[in-house]
Formats: sequence, structure tokens, C-alpha cells
Amino acid sequence: MRKVAIIGVGMTKFGENWEQGFREMVTEAGVKAIQDANIKGDEISAGYVGTMASGSLVGQEHAGALIADYMGLNPVPITRVEGACASGSLALRQGVMAVASGLHDVVVVGGVEKMTDLDTAAVSQILGGAGDQEWELFMGATFPGLYAFMARRHMYEYGTTEEMLASVAVKNHENGAHNPYAQFQRPITIEQVLNSKMVADPLHILDCSPITDGAAAVVLAPLDEATNFNKKPIEILASEQASGTLALHDRSNLTSIKAAKTASQRAYQKAGITPKDIDVAEVHDCFTIAEVIATEDLGFFKPGEGGKAALEGKTKIDGEVAVNTSGGLKSTGHPVGATGVKQAAEVTWQLRGEAGERQAKDVEYALTHNVGGSGATAVVHLYKRGY
Amino acid sequence: MRKVAIIGVGMTKFGENWEQGFREMVTEAGVKAIQDANIKGDEISAGYVGTMASGSLVGQEHAGALIADYMGLNPVPITRVEGACASGSLALRQGVMAVASGLHDVVVVGGVEKMTDLDTAAVSQILGGAGDQEWELFMGATFPGLYAFMARRHMYEYGTTEEMLASVAVKNHENGAHNPYAQFQRPITIEQVLNSKMVADPLHILDCSPITDGAAAVVLAPLDEATNFNKKPIEILASEQASGTLALHDRSNLTSIKAAKTASQRAYQKAGITPKDIDVAEVHDCFTIAEVIATEDLGFFKPGEGGKAALEGKTKIDGEVAVNTSGGLKSTGHPVGATGVKQAAEVTWQLRGEAGERQAKDVEYALTHNVGGSGATAVVHLYKRGY
Repeated sequence: MRKVAIIGVGMTKFGENWEQGFREMVTEAGVKAIQDANIKGDEISAGYVGTMASGSLVGQEHAGALIADYMGLNPVPITRVEGACASGSLALRQGVMAVASGLHDVVVVGGVEKMTDLDTAAVSQILGGAGDQEWELFMGATFPGLYAFMARRHMYEYGTTEEMLASVAVKNHENGAHNPYAQFQRPITIEQVLNSKMVADPLHILDCSPITDGAAAVVLAPLDEATNFNKKPIEILASEQASGTLALHDRSNLTSIKAAKTASQRAYQKAGITPKDIDVAEVHDCFTIAEVIATEDLGFFKPGEGGKAALEGKTKIDGEVAVNTSGGLKSTGHPVGATGVKQAAEVTWQLRGEAGERQAKDVEYALTHNVGGSGATAVVHLYKRGY
Repeated sequence: MRKVAIIGVGMTKFGENWEQGFREMVTEAGVKAIQDANIKGDEISAGYVGTMASGSLVGQEHAGALIADYMGLNPVPITRVEGACASGSLALRQGVMAVASGLHDVVVVGGVEKMTDLDTAAVSQILGGAGDQEWELFMGATFPGLYAFMARRHMYEYGTTEEMLASVAVKNHENGAHNPYAQFQRPITIEQVLNSKMVADPLHILDCSPITDGAAAVVLAPLDEATNFNKKPIEILASEQASGTLALHDRSNLTSIKAAKTASQRAYQKAGITPKDIDVAEVHDCFTIAEVIATEDLGFFKPGEGGKAALEGKTKIDGEVAVNTSGGLKSTGHPVGATGVKQAAEVTWQLRGEAGERQAKDVEYALTHNVGGSGATAVVHLYKRGY
């Protein structure tokens, strides 16, 4: 297997992008990544794109072919992959496999979702398809409710408080305020979170990531050729994916996501590092409780201590581990198929030292953690500088 | 790159499977393939599943995780891939890459679609998402209309007749009558096709593949270990994918699908064989004209001669090249995500000599040809016996 590097990244502004359609967003992100990589289109030999629900959201399936066409890349094969909210990281993983195996040299990976063309109820129903349609969604269990179960159990078992959860949102808005691509570029306070509308007890609206349009892209190449293109390639040390039960009711434990633990343990082992080595992590904070659980599953904190750690500032940019420097899903927004690829773009900027006012210090190792549904798919990537 | 073999295949009956849901069908096909391969579930290290539109059709995205869960395979990573009606072959191709690269040894590949839970108009709209949503579907151009354009142009340029098109349907129903998995297991006549209801001139209802529920699965392993599992492994000689324009109006030529020509030429080159070597081919006959064009794009007949060849019986089981021995999409049915995987199952049975009354003689080389939309994605695989 060859070593694989990210040689270019790009993304659109995340938000309510009323002036851009699905294809315009993914093309913008792709072109930016190609320019950042200093390559020409005809150097690309394959592509992958993650999108969760373009069929339901905008009536467009077949996104791989659409992108090959609109980016002028025909006949390059571009394949759509989907794993709910982890679709972007699955696309990245397929790209990594394609380059690592020697089957392809330069591969472009995109993630995109156009979500604001429908009303919130319709979108919530569509997103519910990331869970178990027959046993959860059909009975009315959409995602705020499912994560509320996890939050309540975490509070019951470990004494996690609403204030601790709120501190995750506050930290992520603080970071997102410095991210020009973020949907919400403004700080919020714990009081604002606690006083915001209740969505699914104990999760307030400011505990929830928003509905967002956006796209992100990265370009991959073999590490040993990467500096021919870009002076600052970022090596992908590990790319691991694991599956867990689709429905929450089939789990013996609601306070941890088994697939995320499995994927991260395999990734650390493959890279020969430990959680303590991670300086920057983009984790899947679709709800504040999800970030708390993620920081425990990834081994940054012991089970039950993620909430307290957040409240104490240990996950801030200048903390023990900088979690969601981008602003996370909470503040950057969560165009579901794009999120995993955006995470890779953010850690690339952090490792290159190009993250501006949200730059963490002395970043040596970075991690991305992307979860589909309530944890039935989890994907973890590890990164370091390749130059 | 390692050589890759199919060591097991399985499928459900194709049809209006009212008694089975999405998950029951894919599990049935998967279990059959695993049993055929003589492996245990814990020998599987990865999976891919092709489904075009489970989100829109049954409200269930995240099919990879669902399958890992329902087949008891957690935490094995299973990834959904999608390329419209070519989704099944894209899943097969990802599986081939995973094994060829050495990243995984035993990989299960599934294809599934549950289509009959909605009415025909709704399904037609959803399938329209395989074309260009903004420039075709939104304007009312669904697939019968798009393929009718191709048929009319083929008739204009080459003198192809409605009778020639009808002969494709007649031949495929003749084959499907011997396929216990086929949706329509009865012969039809040219007169019946020509007198059947017009859907989109010149395509009658009996020129069109039906709406179908169904699933298919194959198990892949490295060729050099394949006989440890199954005495009759089938080697995959080539797996090629190409992209073309999403919309029909962007093409300089309506009588050929460029992506299919590109993919097949690359596949022949990789395998070191020519079209004349192919004994059995499963091709994408979503409409009768599509099979005519396929037999030309694949090099079996010169441009313009595919219709005449069909009428003359050259594509029958005892003809020059046995095309769609299964009955094709026309008679076996077309559960879109399953079709590409079903094609691989059919050529496996043909190469093993297990195709019963529809068995072709002396089958040495086989081909599958799977097209997404009106040709924006095309995937071609080549096969021979690996024992």
C-alpha cells in the first residue's frame, strides 16, 4: 500500500446558499481544491463524492456522473458513496483506498448537500432515513429525539449537566466566529443556549447543528509524488470505518458509540499513535451530546468526563486537545454529505498553519471523526504533515 | 494488483415482492451468496451495496449500515455506492478494487431496490433523478422519452425498425421464461410488442423494462485463494467504469453511448481479448433500443447493425453471442440497484454451466454491461472461469 496525501482542499461558504444549486456548489469546491493542489483537470483519474440524500432533497441522484460532467472531467469515473451523515468521510476513504492501492494516482473527493430547498419538517423526515426507517423513523423518532435519549442517559449515568452540553455549543460558536466559511459566525453564551427553545429535552435548539447548504473537496495523491504538486502535502496516516446497530434500541449502551470506538482504536493502532498525540480533532457534533460522547469514544477523556472537560475548557483551541476548531457542525453548519470532507479540509489548514485566527499551536497530529445516523457508521481518519 | 474471483452468488426472485421489505430482500440474497461461497460471516471483512434511490422509494438511506446490522456482520464496514441504474456494478467494482488492492480478502457485494411500494408515476419521477434533474426531469423528460429520442434517431440514421426492436423483447422473454428468478416467465410475440400500448413513440410498453423489487449478491475473494471456498470460482478479468454527459442534449451522437464504448474498450484491452471472444453478455436493456445500442457499443456488431442482428437471431442463446440469457432487464425485471449484481450472478451461472434450460454452450468469456441513466455512467466487467 502506498502512503496517501491531501494535496489540495476547497469549500464553499456553508449556509443558506439560495443563489447556488447542488451542482454549482460542488463545482465551486472542486475547482478550489484543484487550484489549491496546483493540478490540471486531466491529471485526475478518478473521483468520489459523498452526498446523503440528493435524491430526496433536490431530485437528483447520479451525482458522480453529474460532477464528472459539470467539472469537464468526462470520461473520468466518479462514484457517489453514501453512509448518511458520514457520506463525506466514506468518499474520502474510497479515495484513499484508490490511491493507496496504486489503482489511481490523483483522485478528487467531494462532499455536498443542498438542504434548504425544502421546509424543515420535510428535511427532518429525510434525515430520519439515516436511522432505522421501519423501527425508528416510522414511529416518529427523528434525530433530535434519538440524541436526546443518549443525552439523558449520559446525564443519568455520569451527572453530565445541560450547562456542560451548552459549553460545547459556546466553544464551537467561538471557533466558528473566526471561520469565514461558517454558517454562524457569532459567539453565543451558555445562558443563550439554556434559554433557547427546547427541541427534544434536554437538547435546546442551540444544542443542535443547523440545516445547511454547502460543499467541500480535497485532492489526493501518492505521498511520494505529492510535493510535485503542493509544497505542503498532508499525509493520511489511517482511514478506518466501522458499523454498529442501525437502531438505538438494539444497543446495550447509549452513552458510547461502539463503531466510533472500534474505528478510532484501529486507526490509532495503524498509525502507531495514541489519543494523547492528537492536537486537533474535528468531531461529529450534530448535537452537543454527540461531541461529548465523541471525545470519550476517541480516548481524549474517560467515559463520563467529556462534559466536564468541555466546561473546563479542555477542548478549546488552547486546551489539551483542540476540538472542532472549524466551529464543528454546530457553528460551521452541517450539509450532511459535505461534513466529512470539510473536516479533512479544516485539519489540512490546521496542519499547514493556515487556519488564521482559529489556528491551534504546534499541530503535529490531527483526527477527523464522522458519524452516520446515531452511530451505525463511524469513520476516523488520522493526519500529519507530509513535508 | 491481485486477481479477483467471484466465489458465491445469490438473488431473490425479481418481481412485485409484496411480502418482502428492502432489508429482507437484501438479506436473503446475501445469505444465499454466502452459502454458495461456503464461507462464514466472520470471514467477510468489507462490503459494498448498490441501491439507487432507497431514500426516495422507501425512506431508508444508510443501506450499508442496515445490511451490516441485519446480516449480523457488525463492525464490518459496508458502504453504499450509487450511480443510478449502474449502482450494482459500481458496488461490484468497489469490491473488486478492495480485493485486488490487498486491502480486503473476502468482500460481499449486494444490489437491491424496493420499487413497488409507490405508484408508477412517483417511481418514474424518482428514476428521472438518474438524468439531469434541472434540464431534463424538471421539463418533463423521464426515461421512456429520453430513450425514445435515441430510438428515433437510430431508426432515422440506420433504418432500424420497430420490428427489430420488438425482436429484442421477444428474445429476452424467451430466455426469461427459463429463469426461475425472472419477473415475467412467459414468451411474447413480435405482434404482441407492436400492438402493445405506446409509452413514448416508438417504444411500446413491451419495449420497456418493468418496475421491480429484488436483490442480488456476490462474494469476492482473491483468485489464488478462491478454490479454498468454492470449487468453481469465476475470475473477473476487468472492471472498468466511464462517465459521459448527464443530459442527452449535450451529446453529439444519440445512437451510441460514449461512456459504454470507453469502458468496454478499456476492459477488452486490460483482459487482452476482443468482442469476438465474448460468448455470453448481460447488457443493460432498460428499453429494447438500449440493447441494440449496447451490442454495437460493445463491438459485437457494427454501428447500425444491432437491430438487424437481433431480428436475425444472432443474439439468441445459440446465436453468435448470447445476449441477456437471464432475460435481461426486460423479462427478469429491473430493480435498479440490483441489476448490475444480478448480471454478475447470471454470467457466473453461465460460466459454471449451471444455467439450466437457458445455458449457452461452450461459454469461455462473459461480459456484463450496466448503464446509469441515459449513459452518463457505464460499467463493463469481463469474466472467465477461474478453475
